[in-house]
Amino acid sequence: MNVVASDLNEMERFYRANLINSVTGYKSLHLMGTQDKAGISNLAVFSQVIHLGADPALVGILFRPRIPGMNSYENILETGHFTLNHILPEMSCQAHWTSAKWSSSEFKEVGLTEEYLHGFPAPFVKESVVKIGLHMVAEYPVSINNTCLMVGAIEYLEIPDDAIKQDGFVDLLETRTVAGFGLDGYFADGNYDRYSYAKPGVRPTLI
Amino acid sequence: MNVVASDLNEMERFYRANLINSVTGYKSLHLMGTQDKAGISNLAVFSQVIHLGADPALVGILFRPRIPGMNSYENILETGHFTLNHILPEMSCQAHWTSAKWSSSEFKEVGLTEEYLHGFPAPFVKESVVKIGLHMVAEYPVSINNTCLMVGAIEYLEIPDDAIKQDGFVDLLETRTVAGFGLDGYFADGNYDRYSYAKPGVRPTLI
Repeated sequence: MNVVASDLNEMERFYRANLINSVTGYKSLHLMGTQDKAGISNLAVFSQVIHLGADPALVGILFRPRIPGMNSYENILETGHFTLNHILPEMSCQAHWTSAKWSSSEFKEVGLTEEYLHGFPAPFVKESVVKIGLHMVAEYPVSINNTCLMVGAIEYLEIPDDAIKQDGFVDLLETRTVAGFGLDGYFADGNYDRYSYAKPGVRPTLI
Repeated sequence: MNVVASDLNEMERFYRANLINSVTGYKSLHLMGTQDKAGISNLAVFSQVIHLGADPALVGILFRPRIPGMNSYENILETGHFTLNHILPEMSCQAHWTSAKWSSSEFKEVGLTEEYLHGFPAPFVKESVVKIGLHMVAEYPVSINNTCLMVGAIEYLEIPDDAIKQDGFVDLLETRTVAGFGLDGYFADGNYDRYSYAKPGVRPTLI
């Protein structure tokens, strides 16, 4: 299929949504845990999470237009804190399910367990093996399509020791982390390669 | 491993870079093709690519601090156009290799082929099977760590017909698209599941 901009404009809406959501490739998938001021928890699957920098350790999250009932976003503005939790293959269905318009906490509704660790003021997912606690440090409007890039600083990390290589690299097959593609694809298992530090004239080797 | 913010500050720099680059999960990996005003091409592997929206079809790319010699960024400012090309497993080593500090075009240096299609003013990678042509429509500074989010509008798409499902979903196993993790991990092959539209009270099913 060869498509130019005018073809995109004419596509059926859901077809285009699937196509454009797929074509940027694999996505980082996380379950985001938040709570409101009254302590009511929320859990939502997020695919628009991006590494911003390692020093300081910052993560970006793209939020959709601010529609009423977008609880994760509102909760973070209220409390300043949120968690990102990796998804195991056996949690994919539950993770996807959090995207339904629930009227009470998604933890209970989809059958995942809220966990509060070391006084961190947002709920983690007990079943996840990689857990990240963040506080919001900035928000940048992306005016072109009325989205925004929220920036979180990493305050807490939990990763199984077995999955961390000597140089700090986390083996996402060891943690059994699920990736996303498209709007509804959850990807698990497979193989990967790592290569040596890249230099001109020296073909990188497997490490 | 349990880590709090103060532990992160004390970590050895490369260890922290590997850890923090890994912990956000799978990354979308692309080869970005550009050229300068004089027509000299550049090819660079990018992992900080994010879906911004499907209508209009927008992609975000996070650029690192503006250091001299960051050719992709400078080329886009000069010409307004760039391409994103999916990486096949047999191209992973070459893709990684583009990140070396080459003094001439990475296409030639790593052994990938420049391709110009339908008059689009930036080079595609001939060996890639999924090719995206974009023009820059906006740039937002992310002042907290001196990065910026550049926004590209999709102008051209090439995807093998076999890989596109009836509803527009692109099967990234069919296209053999490589994902990234950490700073140097390239991931290929495996399995995935898709789930039905999520509704309260109805457990999503495999589709």
